[in-house]
Amino acid sequence: MSGSPLLAELIDALRCLPGVGAKSAQRMAFHLLERDRSGAQRLSAKLTEAMQRIGNCTRCRTFSETPLCALCANSGRDRQLLCVVESPVDQLAVEQATGYRGQYFVLLGRLSPIDGVGPRELGLDLLAARLAEGEISELIIATNPTIEGEATAHLLNQIAAQASVRATRLAHGVPLGGELEFIDRGTLAHAFGSRHTL
Amino acid sequence: MSGSPLLAELIDALRCLPGVGAKSAQRMAFHLLERDRSGAQRLSAKLTEAMQRIGNCTRCRTFSETPLCALCANSGRDRQLLCVVESPVDQLAVEQATGYRGQYFVLLGRLSPIDGVGPRELGLDLLAARLAEGEISELIIATNPTIEGEATAHLLNQIAAQASVRATRLAHGVPLGGELEFIDRGTLAHAFGSRHTL
Repeated sequence: MSGSPLLAELIDALRCLPGVGAKSAQRMAFHLLERDRSGAQRLSAKLTEAMQRIGNCTRCRTFSETPLCALCANSGRDRQLLCVVESPVDQLAVEQATGYRGQYFVLLGRLSPIDGVGPRELGLDLLAARLAEGEISELIIATNPTIEGEATAHLLNQIAAQASVRATRLAHGVPLGGELEFIDRGTLAHAFGSRHTL
Repeated sequence: MSGSPLLAELIDALRCLPGVGAKSAQRMAFHLLERDRSGAQRLSAKLTEAMQRIGNCTRCRTFSETPLCALCANSGRDRQLLCVVESPVDQLAVEQATGYRGQYFVLLGRLSPIDGVGPRELGLDLLAARLAEGEISELIIATNPTIEGEATAHLLNQIAAQASVRATRLAHGVPLGGELEFIDRGTLAHAFGSRHTL
């Protein structure tokens, strides 16, 4: 961009957004300058505010600008159910897709010794202490069905067993609306092996 | 989003970006919080700075944070050629795609009486004054090939004629790499009518 160094800097800064390349960043910068300067100012303010104030809930580790997140502070949620997810975005997915009304625990990662992510980094001591409180009757393990997610699920299962809490895992199989022809082999094999009586 | 009101506000603010819906905005907010807080802070700063400081060049009307944009101030550009475009993003497209080394004039719109956009709004008095300076030998009209763009081109042609400056228009026809089968009828008819000897 030959006209304005500041515009070039804005375009470059926009590329920190996931899925935004050079062309989209250009389009965004021009759109904001031409048509939505007030929206851009608001976005700027919210970005700064969010990055400075959003930390993690002391109880469930999800994103929160208060020591206790709104969900943990909500007395209307079932205190006997605890769903463990890898990240806040997984928590949001469960919250939006299901009618789940229990509590969450967010690992902020998954077991990955090679990256230095062990039980301590995942806050498993906090989780064990929570289970030891005796209020939880079911630990719903909703880690992703990847190798690391499965290893994490295995460890979570052990922690639940130590606290004599029933552990459950999300069902895996053919997605609804999926066609067998296009399902990957691993999923299909798993679904076949886990068939149940109608 | 039940966990954090501020996060919900950030997600909403991100939707001012073109092409960003609810789902992408979520993904962007989580990505920034989890993995790129410094990038987000930089983006916030650049957004504010750009919206506050970027105005228009007094000579060519493109975006610029200085009274004269870098391109108008560049003495290495050919002062005899003036390319008229509708918007700064069109200017950028010409600049990036072609080897053009002349100057630009940015209309910041196109003739559209119904929206109250007339010659004054397009800065055509400024353009006429520029042509009257006598330095320009060719006015390259690069408005878009839409009805409004064509009407604008027609008016620009008259202004050039009044100043006895040669006016040229970008060639229209079948795009390179395009297949006749998939070209719209209007373009194909125009290309057919404008055929030239090999």
